[in-house]
Amino acid sequence: MLHASTSARRRLRQLGIAPGILPPGPHNAITDVAGVLVGHETLIADPMVRTGVTAIVPHSGNLFEDRVPAGVAIGNGFGKFAGLTQVQELGELETPVLLTNTLSVAPVMQGTVDWTLDRNPQALSVNAVVGETNDGVVNDIRARVVTPAHAMRALDVARGGPVHEGCVGAGTGTVAFGWKGGVGTGSRVLPPALGGFTVGVLAQVNFGGVLQVAGLPIGQLMGQHYLRGELDQGDADGSVVFVIATDAPLSDRNLRRLAARSFLGMGRTGSAMTNGSGDYALAFSTAPSVRRTPDRRAAAWSPLELPNDLISPLFQAVIEATEEAILNALCMAVPMDTHDGRRIEALPLEVLVEAAAGNKPCGR
Amino acid sequence: MLHASTSARRRLRQLGIAPGILPPGPHNAITDVAGVLVGHETLIADPMVRTGVTAIVPHSGNLFEDRVPAGVAIGNGFGKFAGLTQVQELGELETPVLLTNTLSVAPVMQGTVDWTLDRNPQALSVNAVVGETNDGVVNDIRARVVTPAHAMRALDVARGGPVHEGCVGAGTGTVAFGWKGGVGTGSRVLPPALGGFTVGVLAQVNFGGVLQVAGLPIGQLMGQHYLRGELDQGDADGSVVFVIATDAPLSDRNLRRLAARSFLGMGRTGSAMTNGSGDYALAFSTAPSVRRTPDRRAAAWSPLELPNDLISPLFQAVIEATEEAILNALCMAVPMDTHDGRRIEALPLEVLVEAAAGNKPCGR
Amino acid sequence: MLHASTSARRRLRQLGIAPGILPPGPHNAITDVAGVLVGHETLIADPMVRTGVTAIVPHSGNLFEDRVPAGVAIGNGFGKFAGLTQVQELGELETPVLLTNTLSVAPVMQGTVDWTLDRNPQALSVNAVVGETNDGVVNDIRARVVTPAHAMRALDVARGGPVHEGCVGAGTGTVAFGWKGGVGTGSRVLPPALGGFTVGVLAQVNFGGVLQVAGLPIGQLMGQHYLRGELDQGDADGSVVFVIATDAPLSDRNLRRLAARSFLGMGRTGSAMTNGSGDYALAFSTAPSVRRTPDRRAAAWSPLELPNDLISPLFQAVIEATEEAILNALCMAVPMDTHDGRRIEALPLEVLVEAAAGNKPCGR
Amino acid sequence: MLHASTSARRRLRQLGIAPGILPPGPHNAITDVAGVLVGHETLIADPMVRTGVTAIVPHSGNLFEDRVPAGVAIGNGFGKFAGLTQVQELGELETPVLLTNTLSVAPVMQGTVDWTLDRNPQALSVNAVVGETNDGVVNDIRARVVTPAHAMRALDVARGGPVHEGCVGAGTGTVAFGWKGGVGTGSRVLPPALGGFTVGVLAQVNFGGVLQVAGLPIGQLMGQHYLRGELDQGDADGSVVFVIATDAPLSDRNLRRLAARSFLGMGRTGSAMTNGSGDYALAFSTAPSVRRTPDRRAAAWSPLELPNDLISPLFQAVIEATEEAILNALCMAVPMDTHDGRRIEALPLEVLVEAAAGNKPCGR
Repeated sequence: MLHASTSARRRLRQLGIAPGILPPGPHNAITDVAGVLVGHETLIADPMVRTGVTAIVPHSGNLFEDRVPAGVAIGNGFGKFAGLTQVQELGELETPVLLTNTLSVAPVMQGTVDWTLDRNPQALSVNAVVGETNDGVVNDIRARVVTPAHAMRALDVARGGPVHEGCVGAGTGTVAFGWKGGVGTGSRVLPPALGGFTVGVLAQVNFGGVLQVAGLPIGQLMGQHYLRGELDQGDADGSVVFVIATDAPLSDRNLRRLAARSFLGMGRTGSAMTNGSGDYALAFSTAPSVRRTPDRRAAAWSPLELPNDLISPLFQAVIEATEEAILNALCMAVPMDTHDGRRIEALPLEVLVEAAAGNKPCGR
Repeated sequence: MLHASTSARRRLRQLGIAPGILPPGPHNAITDVAGVLVGHETLIADPMVRTGVTAIVPHSGNLFEDRVPAGVAIGNGFGKFAGLTQVQELGELETPVLLTNTLSVAPVMQGTVDWTLDRNPQALSVNAVVGETNDGVVNDIRARVVTPAHAMRALDVARGGPVHEGCVGAGTGTVAFGWKGGVGTGSRVLPPALGGFTVGVLAQVNFGGVLQVAGLPIGQLMGQHYLRGELDQGDADGSVVFVIATDAPLSDRNLRRLAARSFLGMGRTGSAMTNGSGDYALAFSTAPSVRRTPDRRAAAWSPLELPNDLISPLFQAVIEATEEAILNALCMAVPMDTHDGRRIEALPLEVLVEAAAGNKPCGR
Repeated sequence: MLHASTSARRRLRQLGIAPGILPPGPHNAITDVAGVLVGHETLIADPMVRTGVTAIVPHSGNLFEDRVPAGVAIGNGFGKFAGLTQVQELGELETPVLLTNTLSVAPVMQGTVDWTLDRNPQALSVNAVVGETNDGVVNDIRARVVTPAHAMRALDVARGGPVHEGCVGAGTGTVAFGWKGGVGTGSRVLPPALGGFTVGVLAQVNFGGVLQVAGLPIGQLMGQHYLRGELDQGDADGSVVFVIATDAPLSDRNLRRLAARSFLGMGRTGSAMTNGSGDYALAFSTAPSVRRTPDRRAAAWSPLELPNDLISPLFQAVIEATEEAILNALCMAVPMDTHDGRRIEALPLEVLVEAAAGNKPCGR
Repeated sequence: MLHASTSARRRLRQLGIAPGILPPGPHNAITDVAGVLVGHETLIADPMVRTGVTAIVPHSGNLFEDRVPAGVAIGNGFGKFAGLTQVQELGELETPVLLTNTLSVAPVMQGTVDWTLDRNPQALSVNAVVGETNDGVVNDIRARVVTPAHAMRALDVARGGPVHEGCVGAGTGTVAFGWKGGVGTGSRVLPPALGGFTVGVLAQVNFGGVLQVAGLPIGQLMGQHYLRGELDQGDADGSVVFVIATDAPLSDRNLRRLAARSFLGMGRTGSAMTNGSGDYALAFSTAPSVRRTPDRRAAAWSPLELPNDLISPLFQAVIEATEEAILNALCMAVPMDTHDGRRIEALPLEVLVEAAAGNKPCGR
C-alpha cells in the first residue's frame, strides 16, 4: 500500500486551531470565490510514481476570450514557473493556472496550450501559466510520467465546492518541514462593511524551515526543523506556489500587491525561504466588473475597481488564508514511502492538539 | 513630563522570550556585526516635538571611498526612501543609512550630503540613503524641526556596542500595533560549521496588524488589533525600515535576497502590510573581502564571496533577528503623549510574561 | 558675458530636420498636452554658478488632491531620483515633477514639500518627485546654491504654451555628446482615427555616446564621440531625465510601459547609456477620466482607460517626441564657459543642415 | 520552390554599410566570443511549415555543471520566454538558450530538459531557457510541428565559426518591418586598451516599426512602415529575442545591465516596441574566471570581475552589435510564401546601397 487512508486526517480548523481574526468562507477553500474551479490529476503507481497536476480555473467560461486581471509576486525565483512575464506586462490571465512537478512544466504547458487551442480556433498565441515544486524526494521525478493529457484531465475535472487536499494532484509527492506535504487551501471573508469580499488561496506546499502552527512552536517541540538534526541545510529547500483568487474588483497592480502579501502568511508558518526554494504567488480577480472581454479589449472601457485606500483588509485576508492553506496541506497529507524506500511521515495531529490545548507557544 | 522612565522596560529576551533557533550576538544588536556604528539624535520638546534621526554606519572608515556591497528589497513602496535606485543599479552603499520621519527626508539627505562632501573634497555626486516612517500620530510632523545638523549629529555620535532602543532617534515618535513603537535591534550568530557569520538588524517600527509575540496572540488577547475596535483600518498603516548588516561576504545580489527575507520576520509579528505602510529593507556586508576600495573599483578584481548554495542559514538568521528587533522596539518603548493630547501606551510587558508562562497561543 | 545669445539657435525642425512619421503639436512641446505647465528657475552668476530648477506641473489644480496616474521606467539607476517607489507602488503622482542638479535634490525636495504643505493644511505625508542630472562639468556643483525657494519659484512661474529650451532651468549647466546640453521638449499628435491623443516629452539632457541626428552620423562626422579623442570614456557619462505627459487615458501600468519606450528614442540619438548615466523616465496622464480625485480614492470607481491593444501608436509617439526633445536641447543650447575656465561649445547647426542637405548618413 | 536562393543576399557590411564606431570580430557573429556555439534546426515543408529551432550554447563543456553567470532584461514582456526567473534569482545559466516559435516553447523546453538529464544522471531540477517569437504570419503555427527531438538536434549540430543567418532555425518564419525577417548576428571587439573583449549578439528578428538602416530612413523611403499603408497597427507587433555573449568577466548584475543596452540598438533600427511585441535580452559571460564550477558553488570563492567603472565600452559594443544583428537578419532573409498564400518579400538590398551612396538620411 502506498499510503495510509486520509480518514484519520483533519483540517487545521477541525483540530480547534483557527489562525487569524477573519472568518473563512463556507468551504474554507479557494472555491469559496464564486466560479473558481479546482481539478486534480493524481499519479501514484508502484513503486516510483507519486506526482500529479492541479488546475485552478478562474471561471468556467472561455478564459482566453474573457480574461481576468492578474498580478504576480516572486518570493524567491529559483523555479521554473512559466508564463509570468506576460502576466506582469499585460496584467491578465488568458489560461488557467496549472501546477505540477519541476521536470514536468513542459508537458503541462503543452497540455494547456492544446486545451486552449482546441477551444479557440483562431488563437495563434497562448500564454500557458504553469507553476511547479520539486517532488523528487518522494517521486522518481526523472521518470517524467506526466503528459499533456494529464494536464487536460486536471482541467476537465475541475469543479467548485470542497477541494481535495493533501497528497493529491500537484501535491502528491511534496514534502514540507520534513513532514509529508501536499496541496492545501483556505479562504477568508471580509465583513459587509469592508465590502464582503472573499479571498481564497490554494498552496502547493513543499518547503521547510522551523514549523510554527498558529504560533505554536511545533518544529522546536518535535526537534525537527531546519538547521537541526535530520533536517539539514538542504532539507529546507523545496518551493511553494500560492494561487490566490478574489471576487474583489482589483486592478492588476493591486492584485500584484495582494499576491506579495501571501509571503507574510508563509513567514508565519516558519519558512526560511532558502536559496533552493522557488516561491511564487499569483493573484487574480473574478469580479465581472474587471473582466477583460473581447469588447473591452477593443475600445476604451471602464473597469469598476477598488482604489488603493480600500484594499488593506484584503491583505489581512490573504495573509490568514495563506497561513491556513499551508497548514491544511500538512494536516491533510498522509505518510508516504519515497521512491527510494524511505518513509515520509505525516505531521502528527495530536501534537498540534496538545500544544494548542495548553502549553507550548514559541520561543520558550 | 513627556514620557515615563525606561527603567521598567525590558528587552524581549529579558522577559524569557526568545524567538527562533539561533543564538544572538553579545549585544543582540546590529552592532554585533563588527565595525557597525549606530547613532541617535532624539528631538523631544514640549508640547509637540517627538521625532529624530538614527544613523547606521557600516564602518568607521571613509565609506564614500571604501564602499560596501548592498541590496534592497521593497515590501510595500508607499514611502519616500531616498537613494534606492543607485544602490540597486551599482550594488553598493557610498554613504551611511539614515532614518527619520516622512517629512524630514530632505534635510536628512542634505545633512548626509554635507557630511560626505566635507570628508571628500573631490566628490561631485553623493547618493544619500535615507529611510523614513511617519510619526505624525505622536509628533507634530508638519512642524519639521529636523535639520541637516541633526543628521550630522546622529552620524557623529554613532558608535558600536549596545544600541539604545525604543523612543530614541528615528523611533522617538513611532507607533506600532496601537502601542508606542520605536527603534529596535537584534542579531543572530551562525554556528562555526556554517561560517560563524553574524547578521544584525535595526528596525524603525511604525506599523500595525494583529500582534504576535514569538507566536503568542497578544493582539487578540488584548483585543487591540487591526480591523477591530479602536484599531480601525487606517491604524494599521505606518511603515517600517529594516537595516541589515552582516559580516558574511555576500554579493550585492545575495544581499538583496537577504534583505527580502526580513519581511518573513515581519510577517511573524502579525503585520498586515497595509496599503499605507512603506516597508523597506536594505542589507550590506562589512566583509573586507567584498569591500569596494578605490583600487578595486579601478581594475578587474576578485571579491571573495559565498556562493548561492551556502547562504540559506543567513536567511534563517535575518528572519529571526528581524522578528526580535521589531519586538524589542515595542518592549523598550515608553508611553508618550501625542502632540494633540492623546496618550499612546507602551505594550504591557506583564501580559507577554503571563502569556508566555502558560497559556494563550494563537488562534484559539 | 557668460553665454552667447540664443538668437542664432534654432530648434531641430526649424533646420528642416523632422525625425519620425507623426506630426508634432502646435508648440512641439510637453505643453501641447492640455493643462501641463512648465517653469524654469535659472541660476547663472559669475564665475561659478550655472544651474537651476525646472518644474513640470501636470495640471493647475491641487495635484495633491486630484492625483494623476503615473508610471516610471529606469534605464540606468545611477541617479538620485527621489519619490520613485511610491509612484511605482500606488501608480500615481501627488506632486509636480521637479528637476535639478545631482547635489540639489534635497533642497528641491524640501521646496516641493513646503509648497505642497502650504496648499494642503491637512497633509501629513508628501511624496516629492525630484529628478536630477550632474552639471558639475559646467557648474560649481559643490557650491550648492539651489534653495527650496528656487524650487517654489519654478513651480510658481510654471505656465503653458511655448517652453524655453537649452540652457535654462535644470538644463542650465548640462553637457551632452561633448556639446553644451540643456532642456529640450517635443510632442506628437496621433491621427483622429487612432484617438487623436497628444504625447509630450521634456528632457533634461546631459548624456553622451555617438551623436546621431535623425540618423545623420554627426558624432562621427565631427570626430567627437564616445571612445574617441577628446571624448574619453568618462565623458559619455552624465544622465538624462524624461518627463512624459499624455492626454490619453492610460492605466498606471500602461504609463510605465509608455515611459519605457522613451529609451528607444534615446537610443536613436546615439546614447551609450554608460555606467555613470542615471537615466529615468516618468509618464503621467492628464485625462480627466483617470484622475484620482478624493471621491474616487474613497470608493470603488471606474476609470475610463485604453486597453492594452490600443496603446501602441502612443509608443511610436513617445519614441519620436523623445528623440526630438533631446535634439532640441542640443540645438537650442548656447556655448558656456565652465566654472573652471574651459568652454563648452554648442552643437554647430550648420553641420546638421549640411549633413541633412545631402550626404552623410551613418555608418559610412 | 518555397523560397529563393540566398545567393543574392548580402550581409549589411558587405553592402558597404557599417553601423557604429567599433570593429566587429572575425565572423561578425556571436561565435566570435570564443567557445560559443550556434545550431539551427530549420523546418520547411510544403505548403505550411516554415519554422525551426536555434540553439546558443555558451561553451562545449557540461553547462549544467560549469555554469555561466547571466543576466536578463525585458523590453516588453508580452512573450513566453521560459526560465527567466531562475536566471534572475541565481544569476546563472545551467542550460543553453534555445529559440523557437511561440506555440513550441513546451516541446523545446522538453527537449532541453531531456538533453540535460541525459548528460547529468544526478540532476533532479533543470532550468530550461527558451525564447520565442511568433512566426504565425508565415508558418502555420497551430500545426505545431516542432518536437523535443528538433531541439536536441539544434543542440547537437551547434558549432563555432560563421553563423547561418536569415530564414534558418528560429528565424525561418519571422517577419520584420513588413519584410521577411530571420536570425541575424553581429559582434564588436574592444581595443586592447579597453580590455580587448568581444561582445556578440544573436537576434531572432520578428518586430516592426519604421525601419532605419544605419540611420537611413528606409521605411519612409519605401513607404512601408508602422502606422502607414499596408503596415497597419497590428503589423508592428511580433517580438525579438537577443542572446548576448561576452568574454568580459562580468558579474550577473552587470550582465543584466549589458542585456538592457541591447534595446538601444533595437531603437536605432526604428522599433516601435508595440504592445504585442515580446522583447527579451539575455546576456552571459564565457570568461573562465567567473564560471561557476561545482567546486566554486560549494565554498566561498573569488570570481575575477570587472568593476562597474570599466564596463561602459561593453555597452557601446552591445548596442552596435545588436543593431547590426537585426539588420543582418533582414539582409540575409529571402522572400517566402506564407502558409495562407501571400508572399513576404525580402528587404531590397539595392535600396540600401543607393540610400547609403548618397542621399536619403532620415527625417527629410
